[in-house]
Amino acid sequence: MRETLERITPARIEFAEKAQKRLDNLTKPLGSLGRLEEFARRLVAIFEDTMPSLDKKVIFTFAGDHGVAAEGVSAYPREVTCQMVLNFLNGGAGINVLARHAGAEVVVVDIGVDYDWGLSQDLRAKRSEAVESGLSPYSPAFISKKVVMGTKNMRKGPAMSRAEAERCIDVGIGLADEYTKKGYAIFGTGEMGIANTTPSSAIAAVLTGKPVSEVTGKGTGIGDDALKNKIRVIEDAIAFNKPDAKDAIDVLSKVGGAEIGGIAGLIIGAAANRVPVVIDGFISTAGALVAYCMEPKTKDYMFAAHNSVEIGHRAMLKKIGLKPILDLELRLGEGTGAALAMLMIEAGLKIYKEMATFGEAGVSSEITN
Amino acid sequence: MRETLERITPARIEFAEKAQKRLDNLTKPLGSLGRLEEFARRLVAIFEDTMPSLDKKVIFTFAGDHGVAAEGVSAYPREVTCQMVLNFLNGGAGINVLARHAGAEVVVVDIGVDYDWGLSQDLRAKRSEAVESGLSPYSPAFISKKVVMGTKNMRKGPAMSRAEAERCIDVGIGLADEYTKKGYAIFGTGEMGIANTTPSSAIAAVLTGKPVSEVTGKGTGIGDDALKNKIRVIEDAIAFNKPDAKDAIDVLSKVGGAEIGGIAGLIIGAAANRVPVVIDGFISTAGALVAYCMEPKTKDYMFAAHNSVEIGHRAMLKKIGLKPILDLELRLGEGTGAALAMLMIEAGLKIYKEMATFGEAGVSSEITN
Repeated sequence: MRETLERITPARIEFAEKAQKRLDNLTKPLGSLGRLEEFARRLVAIFEDTMPSLDKKVIFTFAGDHGVAAEGVSAYPREVTCQMVLNFLNGGAGINVLARHAGAEVVVVDIGVDYDWGLSQDLRAKRSEAVESGLSPYSPAFISKKVVMGTKNMRKGPAMSRAEAERCIDVGIGLADEYTKKGYAIFGTGEMGIANTTPSSAIAAVLTGKPVSEVTGKGTGIGDDALKNKIRVIEDAIAFNKPDAKDAIDVLSKVGGAEIGGIAGLIIGAAANRVPVVIDGFISTAGALVAYCMEPKTKDYMFAAHNSVEIGHRAMLKKIGLKPILDLELRLGEGTGAALAMLMIEAGLKIYKEMATFGEAGVSSEITN
Repeated sequence: MRETLERITPARIEFAEKAQKRLDNLTKPLGSLGRLEEFARRLVAIFEDTMPSLDKKVIFTFAGDHGVAAEGVSAYPREVTCQMVLNFLNGGAGINVLARHAGAEVVVVDIGVDYDWGLSQDLRAKRSEAVESGLSPYSPAFISKKVVMGTKNMRKGPAMSRAEAERCIDVGIGLADEYTKKGYAIFGTGEMGIANTTPSSAIAAVLTGKPVSEVTGKGTGIGDDALKNKIRVIEDAIAFNKPDAKDAIDVLSKVGGAEIGGIAGLIIGAAANRVPVVIDGFISTAGALVAYCMEPKTKDYMFAAHNSVEIGHRAMLKKIGLKPILDLELRLGEGTGAALAMLMIEAGLKIYKEMATFGEAGVSSEITN
């Protein structure tokens, strides 16, 4: 992990300037494609390549369970994490549909689900169903990298040990290395884990310094009383565990979650490999904030997919300094926002690569006033 | 035209309710896909079909010149309209790139370009280049429906006669009818016309009742002095022509433009044929506002693609009651924002059609609090 962090360098501004020169010579008024131009500039700077390609795209959906679910913080029962993993593998979830739409593959990573797939025929059966249903190449891969069988209840003690939290980060880094070698040019983050807005709000509160009540929302849709309880649970967890805001790994281990650690690691690995990474919504941004606090240069490789309905999202994006691409009132997670944002990022690159210049098109570029 | 206006009926709310029932049974928390769910509901209500399809998509880029360009209101010379039409046909413009990205075809409609293609070999040569370059099926079609050889200078008199304005609307209606018959399921609007933010701001001022200075921006990028001049030109045009705010065709003819009329007609025709239509940016929204003032029920068929940088855009969207889908700081026009927004609208439909229900996926839907 330390070695990977040391490999991270800032994106190269001189490449962004080269990209802007080309953008300014395309058949359109200067700057008129707004953020699409920003995406192209950033990609060129990240890849250090004036004609990069985004052909192979992958979204990692990290799945983990949370001991704190026992505190009644979620609208759904804990088993849903495991049921949704099967739904992903069967191609029926939101992330499957939207990743197909964006031309991205989905990799489902079990990093902390409280279920022993080895004892079950379900997983194998579901996987073959997915393959047989002809969804390939978008049938999701399943990767078992289980660090914990769910986290512990953070209201009563640390969610994970420091060693476990570091292993979660290492899982993400390992995947970034592996998929860079396989030729994937852009990553998206995603997650599934019943109750995981609770540790995400806890991380947001500790790392942004804001009160818990200002960064805690209704997640999948709990009522007002349940929200009050959720806020109390998070306040208790922070009071009990005393996470050190100056030590993001301490925060991740005490009031975080396995999938959040995996996402942080994926982002760190992406930055070290100079691969752009699209951060999905609230929970993914908690992972991004952990990565950013460990190494602020990771920011140069991040794209914020969208502005989540979940109230703590903006505070975290602001702390990192990211502006979301979309604002479609999403709050599903899984990587769904990342898939949609990839379509916009790719649009920016296509504009940059495929549009004609004034000279090529014989269009007058003179500005008359 | 009158007959088409009379055919327009509101979108059917009972179909939207049926769609919401299915959306609420998909494997996701209730409402968690936000505006994607809205898009699916609206499409089902428009098509009166619980399983509609958006396979064939087309963006109409209406091109026209403007006499008012002689007043120094644009940063670019008038010839650029014609040069850009050739660029469209050659596949090198922003709309070509983004329509390909969205899987939409482009139809370039000459409704008022001040150039006689019949005397020129350019067009034929460019068209064969485009076809030979293998861009098909996305090589744009060119349709000649010229109503005027550019509008007249509206500072000195009406831009068009009432009969010309009505013919522009009829061109749009005719295209909507033709492409509905050809099986296209969604339309996008776009335009090209040097100086056309000027008539668009004039229409915005008259039909929203706001002062010209509040709805007039820098268009393709004029300086501060040129902006002051542009505002004065628009104020003069309105003072001289006295367009009747209660008569949208009067406004369109006196201070509008041919392509704006074509867009208004396309929207009216789309609504009459129950086809959704994606309104691009500032100029397209001026056309949409004309359509809306002629028949408010057209609104049910409109999707506002994005929030343009051009300052008068919001006032027009507010008057119609539309909320833009994207906010990417675009100000290019041509239909580029419509192409990008189509990707989001289609994402909404795919979620609705392709996601598994709780029952199908074996996922618990019980809400525990």
